[in-house]
Amino acid sequence: MAVTQFNPACSKPRLHSSQLSFLPRNLPRHRHCSFAPLRRTQHARISCSVAPNEVQVPAVKTPDPKSKAECYGVFCLTYDLRAEEETRSWKKLINIAVSGAAGMIANHLLFKLASGEVFGPDQPIALKLLGSERSIQALEGVAMELEDSLFPLLREVSIGIDPYEVFQDAEWALLIGAKPRGPGMERADLLDINGQIYAAQGRALNAVASRNVKVIVVGNPCNTNALICLKNAPNIPAKNFHALTRLDENRAKCQLALKAGVFYDKVSNMTIWGNHSTTQVPDFLNAKINGLPVKEVVKDHKWLEEEFTEKVQKRGGALIQKWGRSSAASTSVSIVDAIRSLVTPTPEGDWFSSGVYSNGNPYGIAEGIVFSMPCRSKGDGDYELVKDVIFDDYLRKRIAKTEAELLAEKRCVAHLTGEGIAVCDLPGDTMLPGEM
Amino acid sequence: MAVTQFNPACSKPRLHSSQLSFLPRNLPRHRHCSFAPLRRTQHARISCSVAPNEVQVPAVKTPDPKSKAECYGVFCLTYDLRAEEETRSWKKLINIAVSGAAGMIANHLLFKLASGEVFGPDQPIALKLLGSERSIQALEGVAMELEDSLFPLLREVSIGIDPYEVFQDAEWALLIGAKPRGPGMERADLLDINGQIYAAQGRALNAVASRNVKVIVVGNPCNTNALICLKNAPNIPAKNFHALTRLDENRAKCQLALKAGVFYDKVSNMTIWGNHSTTQVPDFLNAKINGLPVKEVVKDHKWLEEEFTEKVQKRGGALIQKWGRSSAASTSVSIVDAIRSLVTPTPEGDWFSSGVYSNGNPYGIAEGIVFSMPCRSKGDGDYELVKDVIFDDYLRKRIAKTEAELLAEKRCVAHLTGEGIAVCDLPGDTMLPGEM
Repeated sequence: MAVTQFNPACSKPRLHSSQLSFLPRNLPRHRHCSFAPLRRTQHARISCSVAPNEVQVPAVKTPDPKSKAECYGVFCLTYDLRAEEETRSWKKLINIAVSGAAGMIANHLLFKLASGEVFGPDQPIALKLLGSERSIQALEGVAMELEDSLFPLLREVSIGIDPYEVFQDAEWALLIGAKPRGPGMERADLLDINGQIYAAQGRALNAVASRNVKVIVVGNPCNTNALICLKNAPNIPAKNFHALTRLDENRAKCQLALKAGVFYDKVSNMTIWGNHSTTQVPDFLNAKINGLPVKEVVKDHKWLEEEFTEKVQKRGGALIQKWGRSSAASTSVSIVDAIRSLVTPTPEGDWFSSGVYSNGNPYGIAEGIVFSMPCRSKGDGDYELVKDVIFDDYLRKRIAKTEAELLAEKRCVAHLTGEGIAVCDLPGDTMLPGEM
Repeated sequence: MAVTQFNPACSKPRLHSSQLSFLPRNLPRHRHCSFAPLRRTQHARISCSVAPNEVQVPAVKTPDPKSKAECYGVFCLTYDLRAEEETRSWKKLINIAVSGAAGMIANHLLFKLASGEVFGPDQPIALKLLGSERSIQALEGVAMELEDSLFPLLREVSIGIDPYEVFQDAEWALLIGAKPRGPGMERADLLDINGQIYAAQGRALNAVASRNVKVIVVGNPCNTNALICLKNAPNIPAKNFHALTRLDENRAKCQLALKAGVFYDKVSNMTIWGNHSTTQVPDFLNAKINGLPVKEVVKDHKWLEEEFTEKVQKRGGALIQKWGRSSAASTSVSIVDAIRSLVTPTPEGDWFSSGVYSNGNPYGIAEGIVFSMPCRSKGDGDYELVKDVIFDDYLRKRIAKTEAELLAEKRCVAHLTGEGIAVCDLPGDTMLPGEM
């Protein structure tokens, strides 16, 4: 069944008669109008709340993969930004898909995206929220709160549980959703369970997203999830996929600042190498404090070698102990940082870390994995790997270890990347403390 | 016992010998240095985590009411913003105190304040977090996440449980903390319990805050809490105290937009009159849609009179049903809106709602209560009440009802405002659905 998308702002509404009484009569007539039929799948719910917002229509399955995710409430309106003086100079609206949209990280992130602090004050956005069957009600709650926030730049919100609907024309896909690790679950189990999700989402992105969609994978194990995702999306450049290691980078900067007794804005050139796991390598060889090599500022090299990495990695666990919750707020800040690093030029001489596809890297790291490395961007959404980094034996040795782990993870998900039969020979538990 | 505040960035640190090995040796010498002794009260904990950050020193009581709240971690550093090129042009740092700082609303709000989206990109801020004995660990968790977020504008974070410490020199006090209503608790009980808290916080503001501190009360019952607070702070202008009705205003705008089928940015001049309770009056007589009176756009006057107010008020309850949590994110957005409305000029012809002291109001509303009314600001932190509003019998009647409720609440807290013996004759339960 196709349901007409209700747009009372248009001059010739084709509406079900029961809706006509709610039509205002003297609205301006300059709006751009479209009455595209909104097809609904079996999973969809009707919640377009232009009064009355409690309408329930039986949902019917349709095989059309191009059907839109459900618009929500006030965001079901169409309009022409070019027709209004205050919005005429705005950029073209961009679609941002977010998975795990009912979770706590997204609950922080969505409001940051909608406020304009990420993409700027002249960039209208559409948020496409992907949830699960279980979380669809919560997604409606999130959409209600977004309505009540009156963000001028937030022009569309739609919710759904089918990635083929939600990822339609997405220019950004922020993939936060993942199953948390259950009791007794090994990393291999988690790789398989979440790998399935990311394989499906990769296929969906491949089918319906913008051909140049930028993908940031947050759900763990994020490096290998990103690898699975990109392998299932052969029509999207592999370079467009990122695994989030920015929170690790931020924490590493903060710990170096604390140690050196400087404010954190004095720490630069911080690389996280490798996996978002306990084998990750926060690089104090290339990092700088006040423009000087860290080892010249922090003379306690024993601390750098033996305590610094642990300090960075234990941060999440310490936080859960103190605060009783995982680090949703600072994770969402780090996602904002990761996006901003791609859409604004990297400051001269500095760089940022991101888990990216390793093919063609200048560091001698194995190809075919998603590995966190130092990047620079011109602000066009793309990035280049930084060439002028140095290595010593200590750094090389640790990079080799996280590389070996990622290669083992890759073998463990071969069934999900189209590379044959999976063989799992993972080392011990390398989940970061405090991570799900 | 006084503990020296550790500042390794200074040239002549006076430190405990156990800390000396952590001192970096080649830090720039241009910093402004101060080694004010940091007195600690019996409640205070030591968590200044410039290495080693696990130091535990026995806390000793001191009667000095001017002692600072505990600085946290990297925020314990002192520095001179004038000495750095990139921060030289910044405004003077402002102190923002937040109570209920370990709660969910604050968890959204603090990161918005720190990001610069509220006070602007050249306004460094100090966050002073007030919690309770029970939440002090959680406050440390919040401070850790703020550290890990590397916000350049966030220069100081301190945490504490004594308002006389935390409110020291506060230029803004955002008072979110309040006891939630327990099972079987009447509004009168809540008025007393939270009234005690707000009386104490008013006295503390009176003693130690900036003489022109702006206070926004969010904790419920917020109007009467604000009244109690201002009555206990006679040296601070009563005009500086606000009770938050901005979320109600935002929701009212959204519901009118939904009804009219317009985007929410087309709704203006929305007043919430009176109490933040079910007697509140969202004013559709003066509100406008696309510059036209609402009643000319929404012809369904029965809906306006009989359903609109309920729609606004049921929003919080509906959200809890859907999302399983109260509206922390949109509440924090509305606090940001409320602050911004005071620090940026109100757009020509528009206004905003705030619960303010009713003395001298031009509407004939009883004096001596905190009543939500339409305000305009020049952006200097102050406001004027709007004069050109109209009334009809329907609006007058409803305003009288919410006024009567606030006068009854006032009689109920007379013991907290220095006005004699409390007499409680409150009407039925008027807590908004979904509010604590």
